[in-house]
Amino acid sequence: MTARSRRLGFAIPGLKPVASLVGGTLVALAATMALPMAVDLWVENPDWRAFAISALVTAAAGALMMALGRGGLEGGLSIRQAFVLTPASWTAVALFAALPLYFSDYAQLRDSFTDAFFESMSGLTTTGSTVIVGLDSAPPGVLLWRAILQWLGGIGIIATAIAILPALGVGGMQLFRTESSDRSEKVLPRVRDIAAAIGAVYVALTFVCAVLYWSVEMTPFDAVAHALTTVSTGGYSTTDLSMGGFGPATQWIATVFMLAGALPFVLYVRLMRGEAEIFRDSQVRTLLALLVGVTAILSGWLVATRGYEEAEAIRHAAFNVVSVVTTTGYASTDYLVWGNFAVGAFFALTFIGGCTGSTSGGMKIFRFEIMAQMLRSHFRRLIYPHGVFPRTYAGRPLPDDVVSSVVVFFSLFFICYSLITLVLMAIGLDFVTAISASVTALSNVGPGLGPIIGPAGNFAPLPDAAKWVLAFAMLLGRLELFTVLILFTPGFWKA
Amino acid sequence: MTARSRRLGFAIPGLKPVASLVGGTLVALAATMALPMAVDLWVENPDWRAFAISALVTAAAGALMMALGRGGLEGGLSIRQAFVLTPASWTAVALFAALPLYFSDYAQLRDSFTDAFFESMSGLTTTGSTVIVGLDSAPPGVLLWRAILQWLGGIGIIATAIAILPALGVGGMQLFRTESSDRSEKVLPRVRDIAAAIGAVYVALTFVCAVLYWSVEMTPFDAVAHALTTVSTGGYSTTDLSMGGFGPATQWIATVFMLAGALPFVLYVRLMRGEAEIFRDSQVRTLLALLVGVTAILSGWLVATRGYEEAEAIRHAAFNVVSVVTTTGYASTDYLVWGNFAVGAFFALTFIGGCTGSTSGGMKIFRFEIMAQMLRSHFRRLIYPHGVFPRTYAGRPLPDDVVSSVVVFFSLFFICYSLITLVLMAIGLDFVTAISASVTALSNVGPGLGPIIGPAGNFAPLPDAAKWVLAFAMLLGRLELFTVLILFTPGFWKA
Repeated sequence: MTARSRRLGFAIPGLKPVASLVGGTLVALAATMALPMAVDLWVENPDWRAFAISALVTAAAGALMMALGRGGLEGGLSIRQAFVLTPASWTAVALFAALPLYFSDYAQLRDSFTDAFFESMSGLTTTGSTVIVGLDSAPPGVLLWRAILQWLGGIGIIATAIAILPALGVGGMQLFRTESSDRSEKVLPRVRDIAAAIGAVYVALTFVCAVLYWSVEMTPFDAVAHALTTVSTGGYSTTDLSMGGFGPATQWIATVFMLAGALPFVLYVRLMRGEAEIFRDSQVRTLLALLVGVTAILSGWLVATRGYEEAEAIRHAAFNVVSVVTTTGYASTDYLVWGNFAVGAFFALTFIGGCTGSTSGGMKIFRFEIMAQMLRSHFRRLIYPHGVFPRTYAGRPLPDDVVSSVVVFFSLFFICYSLITLVLMAIGLDFVTAISASVTALSNVGPGLGPIIGPAGNFAPLPDAAKWVLAFAMLLGRLELFTVLILFTPGFWKA
Repeated sequence: MTARSRRLGFAIPGLKPVASLVGGTLVALAATMALPMAVDLWVENPDWRAFAISALVTAAAGALMMALGRGGLEGGLSIRQAFVLTPASWTAVALFAALPLYFSDYAQLRDSFTDAFFESMSGLTTTGSTVIVGLDSAPPGVLLWRAILQWLGGIGIIATAIAILPALGVGGMQLFRTESSDRSEKVLPRVRDIAAAIGAVYVALTFVCAVLYWSVEMTPFDAVAHALTTVSTGGYSTTDLSMGGFGPATQWIATVFMLAGALPFVLYVRLMRGEAEIFRDSQVRTLLALLVGVTAILSGWLVATRGYEEAEAIRHAAFNVVSVVTTTGYASTDYLVWGNFAVGAFFALTFIGGCTGSTSGGMKIFRFEIMAQMLRSHFRRLIYPHGVFPRTYAGRPLPDDVVSSVVVFFSLFFICYSLITLVLMAIGLDFVTAISASVTALSNVGPGLGPIIGPAGNFAPLPDAAKWVLAFAMLLGRLELFTVLILFTPGFWKA
């Protein structure tokens, strides 16, 4: 044990900075509740009161925590404090964001805090699994709040993935520590500037998406609500038909902007500064190759076995493949009726996910790339036991600790996945529902397989215990496993 | 590229030693066909001719290959030749061992070489999935031949795991290279002696198992046939009810001997020489802890939710858990009717497997132990980024290349698993059948999930294409993936 680690150990009882930052986040959350409140006031829906009360409660709780944590931030954050902060702030936001749904007059959520919390966590983590049946007749405040939660969750995870996870060295994310700091020092002097630039890109993409949706066919409200959940790769819709309720042009716009949300946002900032790296980036290229390849195979399958016309086959295949791989979770149609091969393909795609530093979840493209590198060098070494085969990523040597972090991430993902599936089955879920619910939650995708939670189904019929387990799984997956699980290791709390 | 690897490259066209060894194996296989032939002659079953013809064909093919390979063995085997030899010999044996089943008068196998080959590969790899319905009325020659194939496959994989895989450095097996050579040099001077001692243990265990089966209730024929498939953790039975057709005492004997087959055989040899390492071995302890823990949970579940009496619950839970974890695949009852939790538990157990150096398949206990070590040291490093946490296994430091081989094995297992599942679904299998058929084949367990291939079902109704895919998966899993897959890499065949 080094002197530094002992200092860290000593800092653990000092949760003041954590309280201060979580409190500040809650105050900001309370402020955003004004938006759905205004909409409900405008249409004279009594729910505006639910938002007003929730905003007051949230602001009060936030202010109290800020007061408790006053002065705690002066020494900066220790590693352990950063580990506590991340899940604590996400859990606090999900809890308080559930209040307006629970206080709302809307019968679907009013009677169950479990349902309100599930919907809130599913929104914030940009998962998009819903317990609401009959979205088309839901009040506008609730619909807007769900969309805002996904939008906030989207920008929140980009910030976490750029600012916090690389510093903690979680799941191979240290690979992006050197990368972003090395380069950005030249172009953008401070982290705060990168954050502002990324925020601007996020707002701009959402704005353009909303305008396009509106120009084609949507009402302004639907356009905004869907733009918020498209760019954040969230997937909440304002209709039970999801994107199947809209025409081909709208579906193509959604396909493009879901993909935009799944690319590393740092690369957009670089593009604005004239560096066209986005077209050469390894993650981006692999993601595009995967999407084009799977879409081609699946549209061929639809034409050959399901009698689809070519244009229609390509549109539905592209839309739903992009939706699942970017972990958005919209559906243009019930793809589970496309036959066993399609069911298997969508199940497998649910694990993958988009690029790191984007709004999408899943295991992430760069981890699969690193794993492929590892397999390649391993096979070579089997044939030439004394050869030296350096592993590289994006042209630079790949440090051993990144490789080992990535493989630990993979194994941890499958361990969590197996345990969550088993717990769901012990609660009583059938095999297909359990095995797909756990991965769709961990990957923050949204729909599962089978008649209950498939793209044509809904999470409402699940028992309450299963909803809490799935909400936990969403948080676990969203924060890249380690950040949450480390709090459960005995060593973490020891001095 | 070193001088050595260039020499290896040059040696590839020289497949003479491979031909010579495969030929010798086939001649030995032909000789074993005399046993079922003798039994069929004794009961005056016309199938004796099928065995006679097959023996002649096999012996002729073997002799031809030995002639072609004459003199090739003088320089010893290169690494590449060893890589070619392993899958080549197993495939050749499975093909020729299918001949008596195909030539037999027995209607179930006569009409389809696919079925005969599936049954033969399933036997040789000790998987135990069967396409035969109505085992109770099958001719004795066929039943004995299936049992002999599993027994040969069991001793074959122990030999491969001790003599070949560690030398090739496959999937972390190099861990057992130093171990067995270090120690055995003192006790047993040569590899041939270890092989002979292990063979003696294998024969002795089989003999004791058969005597016990016979003393309790079985006919001599059933006792021998089941002993051959118990100690080899194969799982073929002579009745459609599997071990459900026998009483509690027989089931407990089977439980003990399935477990015996799943322990490292080298440790039995050491035990005979007075080293009681078997009681301290890390793999053995972890396996036992896992079996006791899962059996306790599952018997509690059976008492609490299914109204089983305690003794009955423990017997059925222990039997079926041991059967699946040791990758035997017998069933004492249809455990899929025990409810969703049990279904999930058995599915998860199908991945695990027994100890390396035993007859059982799956991912193997030591790989999970190494993965756990890796997770532990990774979590510590997240908290103490500058700490040094050496990884150890069984009290000795764990070399980095072993750890990386193990993680590559895990990822390769899941890649193969996903691809095989997708291919099975493209062939038309439903989700549950496909997702469980691929793992039961890769892990060499036997039964899958669902009504078709579950413990109460049968692989006969699957399409021919699925049977070939599954036979390939069995071979892939049995030979620890790399040994087969490396032949498909372009680099392998390059100079």
